[in-house]
Amino acid sequence: MIKTIQYINNAVRIIDQTKLPSRFVYLDCKDIKQLWHAIKTLKVRGAPALGAAAAFGVVLGMNDFKDNDRVKFVRRFNQVCDYLASSRPTAVNLFHALDEMKMTVQLYPSASTSRLKQLLKRKADEIFETDRRVCRAMGRHGARLIKNGDHVMTICNAGALATVDYGTALGVFYAAKEKGKRFQVFACETRPLLQGARLTAWELTREGVDTTLITDNMAASVMRDKNIKAVFTGADRIAANGDAANKIGTYGLAVLARHHHIPFYVAAPKSTFDLSLKSGKEIPIEERGGDEVRFFQGRQSAPAKVQVFNPAFDVTPHQLITGIVTEYGLIQKPFRRSVQKILGG
Amino acid sequence: MIKTIQYINNAVRIIDQTKLPSRFVYLDCKDIKQLWHAIKTLKVRGAPALGAAAAFGVVLGMNDFKDNDRVKFVRRFNQVCDYLASSRPTAVNLFHALDEMKMTVQLYPSASTSRLKQLLKRKADEIFETDRRVCRAMGRHGARLIKNGDHVMTICNAGALATVDYGTALGVFYAAKEKGKRFQVFACETRPLLQGARLTAWELTREGVDTTLITDNMAASVMRDKNIKAVFTGADRIAANGDAANKIGTYGLAVLARHHHIPFYVAAPKSTFDLSLKSGKEIPIEERGGDEVRFFQGRQSAPAKVQVFNPAFDVTPHQLITGIVTEYGLIQKPFRRSVQKILGG
Repeated sequence: MIKTIQYINNAVRIIDQTKLPSRFVYLDCKDIKQLWHAIKTLKVRGAPALGAAAAFGVVLGMNDFKDNDRVKFVRRFNQVCDYLASSRPTAVNLFHALDEMKMTVQLYPSASTSRLKQLLKRKADEIFETDRRVCRAMGRHGARLIKNGDHVMTICNAGALATVDYGTALGVFYAAKEKGKRFQVFACETRPLLQGARLTAWELTREGVDTTLITDNMAASVMRDKNIKAVFTGADRIAANGDAANKIGTYGLAVLARHHHIPFYVAAPKSTFDLSLKSGKEIPIEERGGDEVRFFQGRQSAPAKVQVFNPAFDVTPHQLITGIVTEYGLIQKPFRRSVQKILGG
Repeated sequence: MIKTIQYINNAVRIIDQTKLPSRFVYLDCKDIKQLWHAIKTLKVRGAPALGAAAAFGVVLGMNDFKDNDRVKFVRRFNQVCDYLASSRPTAVNLFHALDEMKMTVQLYPSASTSRLKQLLKRKADEIFETDRRVCRAMGRHGARLIKNGDHVMTICNAGALATVDYGTALGVFYAAKEKGKRFQVFACETRPLLQGARLTAWELTREGVDTTLITDNMAASVMRDKNIKAVFTGADRIAANGDAANKIGTYGLAVLARHHHIPFYVAAPKSTFDLSLKSGKEIPIEERGGDEVRFFQGRQSAPAKVQVFNPAFDVTPHQLITGIVTEYGLIQKPFRRSVQKILGG
């Protein structure tokens, strides 16, 4: 599979996803300003990938620190973490990764600064490897939910490009395919930034998954007329009660799925849960600039001055979610208790 | 208001709507091949506008007919009608207009061919004027459904650009504004061809209506979080039971409106009804080329070879429709009986 993110030659190497599907190019972020900008402009995106990007970002940010003074090290380290944390507000994986990096520094109060740098790199590698492993585990658990001949639907990109590799919702599809199942995926293009069209359609067809692209407003009639058997999405943050923030449009799909009696599954690793939040109402929702809606790749599609509302995410209430596919298995209702039992502690 | 369609200097003059909002240019269709192409490529679109375009198209198509032989006239006339009928299959107004033109020829079995040409022009003018009048009447009836301070939603373009002038769903907004009501419209951009972004946002802001543009996949969260009080859409064909075909995405909006307990209104003139169809299942749905989805304003947004499903319309079952705003007033449940009572006969 493609390598979405790597730490190589003292740089965070990412695929510049804004160039897909026309061009497949890597971008080496050589300082954290460049990486911050890459995260902000969605050159790298997807909740689990942002966790790994932030962890490697910390390594990158401390790379040129040569002093032996721990106090100075910690001050610089905190600045780096705060800066990376300011890139995007919704996906919790980014904050979890930064927390893990902070914990590493705290756990070794007498380590030298050069030792701390080694430990941080080891922790970032571990976050990276964990993501790889949990995606495969989610795929195994989720693949059971797909039957031969099924038509399924997804939105945005919860694939290899949204994780270190393999993906969450698309990982379920990859695992089902590896088991020899035949099925068809309807991918919603996902306006305004078209991650479904640009990224999901690209990686699914690349891996030989039978894929049909639709615009987001076709989802309802496709559910009704094309016999959709399940919807699978990723998530950017899941509250303790199972409410899940994900790409704008996910909530609408969940309502439409309920109307058509179609199971609606979220695939997300433990690192996407935020048990400090009782419900999805507390999840911060990023609003982005209006020109993402008024323009596409530089082409104007609306009056330049028309007002635009452009939330990047929405929250799907747990009542509309059939189950959450995690690396520990499928979490089902009642969510608050199941989440606590399987992930709490 | 803008003049969407005119018959002038022996040409059908239309606004080339594919150029909006960047450029506002007229296109003079000087023969029916050019007009057919303009209809096919949505340079002129919208169910009522297609009725007027087809009527003027017949006049255009017979314009250079100089013979006095009625048999030859009728043969040519039928060819012109058949050709125009082959442009787009879903909007019934086009077929109704052609039927009215045919009826005119039949009603005058002994008229000379030059007289027939006059009569056809008069009928086309009448279809044009009727559309203008019924749009104002729909506006008056529909405006009562909007209260001061309301947030409302619409999809595609059911405005002046979809009719001779004023519009159906947007006519309701114009009439409400003329009555001094303050309200806010959320306009869904309407992929793949962005009639909401390009046309509705353009004409509403031009007329001073408070408008916010959203992508189609934001509709659900806007309904929930922005206190939407009603949804208004146009229609391309309405069956005898009230099932309504309209731009793809309309059915989804109706499902979402039901979930959020929001009234869902269709605004359409009598000419949009097809009482020969018992239900929406019989309405032919146009499927269009995949590149409309794979490309966005000429820029590639998906892998060039990915499969695409691109229905231009969907059918909203009458169960999800609160009422149909017509020039005769609001048609409500039970639709089959109300439609028959108000429009039948």
